[in-house]
Amino acid sequence: MAKFIRVDMAAKQVRFEDVADKYLALGGRALTSQLVADEVPPTCDPLGPFNKLVIAPGLLSGTSAPSSGRLSVGAKSPLTGTIKESNAGGITSQKLANLGIKAVVIEGKPAEKGFYLLKVTPDGAEMFPAEDLAGKGTYEVTAICKERYGEKVAVVTIGPAGEMLMLSSGITNNDSEGNSSRYAGRGGLGAVMGSKGLKAIVVDAPKTFDAPVAEPGRFKEAAKKFSKILLDHPVTGQGLPAYGTNVLMNVINEAGTLPTRNFQSGRFDKASEVSGEKLAEVAVARGGKATHACHPGCVMRCSNVYPMPNGKVCAPVEYETAWSFGPNLEISDLDVVAWLNYICNDVGLDTIEAGCTLGVLMEAGVISFGDGKAAIAALEEVGKGTPLGRVIGGGATNAGKIYGVTRVPAVKGQGIPAYDPRSCKGNGVTYATTPMGADHTAGYAVTANILKVGGYVDPLKSEGQVELSRNLQIATAAVDSTGLCLFVAFAVLDNPEGLPTVVEMLNAQYGLSLTTDDALALGANVLKVEREFNKQAGFTSADDRLPEFFTTEELLPHSTRFDLKGEELDEVFNF
Amino acid sequence: MAKFIRVDMAAKQVRFEDVADKYLALGGRALTSQLVADEVPPTCDPLGPFNKLVIAPGLLSGTSAPSSGRLSVGAKSPLTGTIKESNAGGITSQKLANLGIKAVVIEGKPAEKGFYLLKVTPDGAEMFPAEDLAGKGTYEVTAICKERYGEKVAVVTIGPAGEMLMLSSGITNNDSEGNSSRYAGRGGLGAVMGSKGLKAIVVDAPKTFDAPVAEPGRFKEAAKKFSKILLDHPVTGQGLPAYGTNVLMNVINEAGTLPTRNFQSGRFDKASEVSGEKLAEVAVARGGKATHACHPGCVMRCSNVYPMPNGKVCAPVEYETAWSFGPNLEISDLDVVAWLNYICNDVGLDTIEAGCTLGVLMEAGVISFGDGKAAIAALEEVGKGTPLGRVIGGGATNAGKIYGVTRVPAVKGQGIPAYDPRSCKGNGVTYATTPMGADHTAGYAVTANILKVGGYVDPLKSEGQVELSRNLQIATAAVDSTGLCLFVAFAVLDNPEGLPTVVEMLNAQYGLSLTTDDALALGANVLKVEREFNKQAGFTSADDRLPEFFTTEELLPHSTRFDLKGEELDEVFNF
Repeated sequence: MAKFIRVDMAAKQVRFEDVADKYLALGGRALTSQLVADEVPPTCDPLGPFNKLVIAPGLLSGTSAPSSGRLSVGAKSPLTGTIKESNAGGITSQKLANLGIKAVVIEGKPAEKGFYLLKVTPDGAEMFPAEDLAGKGTYEVTAICKERYGEKVAVVTIGPAGEMLMLSSGITNNDSEGNSSRYAGRGGLGAVMGSKGLKAIVVDAPKTFDAPVAEPGRFKEAAKKFSKILLDHPVTGQGLPAYGTNVLMNVINEAGTLPTRNFQSGRFDKASEVSGEKLAEVAVARGGKATHACHPGCVMRCSNVYPMPNGKVCAPVEYETAWSFGPNLEISDLDVVAWLNYICNDVGLDTIEAGCTLGVLMEAGVISFGDGKAAIAALEEVGKGTPLGRVIGGGATNAGKIYGVTRVPAVKGQGIPAYDPRSCKGNGVTYATTPMGADHTAGYAVTANILKVGGYVDPLKSEGQVELSRNLQIATAAVDSTGLCLFVAFAVLDNPEGLPTVVEMLNAQYGLSLTTDDALALGANVLKVEREFNKQAGFTSADDRLPEFFTTEELLPHSTRFDLKGEELDEVFNF
Repeated sequence: MAKFIRVDMAAKQVRFEDVADKYLALGGRALTSQLVADEVPPTCDPLGPFNKLVIAPGLLSGTSAPSSGRLSVGAKSPLTGTIKESNAGGITSQKLANLGIKAVVIEGKPAEKGFYLLKVTPDGAEMFPAEDLAGKGTYEVTAICKERYGEKVAVVTIGPAGEMLMLSSGITNNDSEGNSSRYAGRGGLGAVMGSKGLKAIVVDAPKTFDAPVAEPGRFKEAAKKFSKILLDHPVTGQGLPAYGTNVLMNVINEAGTLPTRNFQSGRFDKASEVSGEKLAEVAVARGGKATHACHPGCVMRCSNVYPMPNGKVCAPVEYETAWSFGPNLEISDLDVVAWLNYICNDVGLDTIEAGCTLGVLMEAGVISFGDGKAAIAALEEVGKGTPLGRVIGGGATNAGKIYGVTRVPAVKGQGIPAYDPRSCKGNGVTYATTPMGADHTAGYAVTANILKVGGYVDPLKSEGQVELSRNLQIATAAVDSTGLCLFVAFAVLDNPEGLPTVVEMLNAQYGLSLTTDDALALGANVLKVEREFNKQAGFTSADDRLPEFFTTEELLPHSTRFDLKGEELDEVFNF
């Protein structure tokens, strides 16, 4: 029977707990958000004793369902003050599920300083001091833990940024080849883990795909069908496997919605130099990989392994990171972008937030746009904890406050990623309204706005964007609860068999008889739980807005502003 | 007839405007808050083009009413995000009133960089470039302007902190002896002035007490009576004139509610070394003044002039500043305290916020508690705009976010001043609920909690604090609208003739027939206008709370926590 692991960091106690009935049908984001909503006071200090960090595999994680190994990490976010679910690849989700662990709940706060390690094996779970790991980067911590506990363990860890309680620090874990940078990056959850004095979690489980399934035959058939649906779609079957997520660089640039020079323009004349095509060419030439799975059993394999001239390897360089350190900073040198990415991975910082923050510092004149060397030097300050490093680790909104910058691309304290809301207005609606703070994955309207997947809604017009974002947010909340990668949505949106097949897998695994409506109701309920938490934490419709400059400054090349009215945005959650 | 001066910083235009009827009976805070509420979009960026800075004398300012020369400065605060009124002494209020100027409204935002000076004389108002003043400290700017425009002008200016848009920068003006440090310090309004490219306002007016009065004889009699009321009260007639505001140091320490070591304790064993008694002794011995009027016609003269060993003069060292740099940082050297004060005055930073911020940095271990030399070195970074200087200028809340500190004494982003809310619970209610962010002047419950003025409410108990704070907040909003110094409240609260005499002065000046109920209704209305602005800006009852640690950590010596419930705090504005 599935269990929760409760980790009391104040008492240094670890215990297994039966899962209450109300949580049995929940997984991933649905479970982390429900647990946080039930157990964390919405107005509490995110870095204080009353916050909890919840780590949960998705409902389908640990089975042979394709691309189902995503991990959800939830808490009250110190960056946004909202409830938060941050989603990562890596092997942890499948290992936890195969150990029958539905969630790890880390709670309390030690009175004294110091860092600990939690070890989870088929025999149980225990915690011990890990002062020798304190201060170390995530690459080294992962290497040490693999040496100590076995090559195949999953290592969940924070870097020095999380230890130093920096508000944009993330939590990473490794893929099956040992690359340690599969990040639950957004929302500063690394600082929550750091505040609890937990440096790392090692999960040792012999199995990956053997989580219990009620009806194995039925499940196998559905999984096979779902795999075919993914492989048959041009995005999930061809585009992503060929060039990875960064196939978007040229596409988004062409669409004129690639935020350039801290959102001053929508097109970067050197975008192709940091594109997926270029990345694939260079990576392969250097013995790296243009295609790579972030977790076992993924058929899209949209990630990559990028060897750098200095002998280090950055794995992966995803699109949003290539954007945040590339066009956003007017940097067109892929090796510089990869190095900035690597520094973040090692110190434990969200790459999107770090790029947005460097953009704000460039806007303030602290660093010059395009100056890769200065950007690297600045980012290296993070691990040293200097005042500048601290400011960078604090995220774009706080950097903007410290430097008096008004062009700060952020909502609810979280930096806006790689799609300008003025020329991809569906994403603008999502940024403004998702309970997560600006988050492209929460309702990825790039689908219908730019890629013409799941229909077409003109990205430059306001019509239809609210409905588009609403439907995507609901669907995403459901997908994020299954452990399936969000990218399955490309295929699911275009194939009427998609959603029923996901539901069929869930039914076969749990012996249920859910309908597709039930799945969407689950997604809708997740959003309602999250919204209610935020409301109690003090968020109002005034927070569901984009920064002023998006409504007053025109974006080239389309000369568009974000012109959806507040009343329209407030309609997103009328369901 | 009274006029507004409208200063359009985008178009560089200055014009006089008739005062609309609805504003005729308003002055000071009532006027700044009403204008901001009417003309500033609540969700706008405080440093963007839609915010407005409003400077207004009080209703009685410029007359012979005693202690009536306070100036109100209002805007949407970049520090708190709330509506803000910041209140200062100095000679500006009386000069504006004598020129028939009811408010100066600074609006718009220049497209280009650069700083300007606004000159207001009996002949009109004009604006011209002031690049030669840019980057200069407030002492030098004041000296230059007095040399250029005459010894008797009022000089309203920001320092480099305001130019650099630091969120805790203030706006200063001079007293009649030329001391340039009468600050509208709180809420970062200096950054609003800086964002508009306005470095200074020079007001040249020949008269101080000759603002028009409808019934001079009646007015004179009431003013005389009011003067006697002030002089007859032990606080306003004896305590304040003898030792100034810093007479409170030993009193508050004795009461065990003197925040020490960043609010870790309620008593400082070396408090007497930075007390008003000590200050008076040292100041007088060095040729300074233990008593001093911040504006002409004040009978309380609670300020001081403190010569420092380095030959510079700090005027004044007020209680809250002596606390913020003294006990709060465990610094007991009055010369160090005065020098920290002087640096803030010159660079243009709120001393309360700067002290709270240094306390947070000490909590984070960036500086050691008690290390005056390090505190001075850190504060000197502000003017240089280094990352550490920027963090200090950004205020306590942002510094806490940058350094991951949970013991941050602040409400709505503004640092809590010199009275611990756990052992002076009435002030705690005020900090939590005032529309201004933590502000002791908004409802100074020290009166009944500690000084036993206007009755007695046990400071350690929760009973009666809501009603006390509510009544004080209403009365304060009224007083802040008259131009009277808030300290008149000590006498007014204890003397049944106090409030009627204030109303009599207003009636005589404006030819009205207000009752005392009308005056309190004015105060209540000011609060309602401010609350409504904040509500539209996105503030909720979740923002009307003290930081978590005040409710979980006991304060010595009384072993008290702040234990008023949320529902109780929400009752403050039920009127």
